Amino acid sequence: MTNFSLESNPTEALKATFRGHASGVVIVTLLDEHKNPVGFTATSVTSLGATPPLFTFNVSQGASSWPAVSLRGHVAIHTLGAEDVDLARKLAGPKVARFTDQDWNPGPFGLPVFEAASSVLIGKIRDIHDVESNAVVIVDVLEALLGVEKGGLLYHQRNFVGVGEVLD
Amino acid sequence: MTNFSLESNPTEALKATFRGHASGVVIVTLLDEHKNPVGFTATSVTSLGATPPLFTFNVSQGASSWPAVSLRGHVAIHTLGAEDVDLARKLAGPKVARFTDQDWNPGPFGLPVFEAASSVLIGKIRDIHDVESNAVVIVDVLEALLGVEKGGLLYHQRNFVGVGEVLD
Repeated sequence: MTNFSLESNPTEALKATFRGHASGVVIVTLLDEHKNPVGFTATSVTSLGATPPLFTFNVSQGASSWPAVSLRGHVAIHTLGAEDVDLARKLAGPKVARFTDQDWNPGPFGLPVFEAASSVLIGKIRDIHDVESNAVVIVDVLEALLGVEKGGLLYHQRNFVGVGEVLD
Repeated sequence: MTNFSLESNPTEALKATFRGHASGVVIVTLLDEHKNPVGFTATSVTSLGATPPLFTFNVSQGASSWPAVSLRGHVAIHTLGAEDVDLARKLAGPKVARFTDQDWNPGPFGLPVFEAASSVLIGKIRDIHDVESNAVVIVDVLEALLGVEKGGLLYHQRNFVGVGEVLD
């Protein structure tokens, strides 16, 4: 235990650890109650078993997209490459500018599909677990739109980064 | 929608999408009912809000570590760098070989702490949500051991990879 310093404040402990944890960046899209497109950039999407195929993501109930998520409808997850960093930034930026370009089209179940995605996983929200002011969203996979394989897009140390070399 | 091909099998859809989704690799450690060390390599650890500080991970109830997880005790999350790929492989390999080297020590709450980690986040399991044969584990953060900042370790396209360049 010689190499470590103790961070006893739990909020600082979480922040310091997750700054050093590289996470994959995706765009999540869905529809609001008026069938208008909603979307956001997320780093919390992760698989939850393949039989049956499920995935999860985490969201704050204070987020602008939360009312749409809480409808428990269909949802699309877009995987991205390093060349899509501006798209990831746009979907993390002002809500009014997220769907004003001609870079998306309505896809399965009317979900917004960004054409740049390397793949688009289509699912239906099965369950939402409230945890404090956040939520864990459980999604059943229905199908996918598979595009061109890309190198991956990550968030690490407060920067968007690409995927590095394969390790032997 | 000109760039995509439809994968209508949901299991294949999940697998194809997550192959292209780069995810951060960590080592999770805890203690079993006899206070023996248990650990595994995971790609599902993600933050769940900072106030209060929480994180989640997903695990199969068929995994060898599941009985220890189901005790709802303390847990340690180790973030890693590319130079720790062999450690990540070891903790994803045969269970009997995971704690036989002199690369770990007992840490807070007796949890196994691997000295190579860039940081070790210590938490207490708050809740477990069963989903089919899997589980979503909700953890309260208590503190962290902060070590040397590293470049990050990822899993992408069935390979361990490092973190690439910062994107402008």
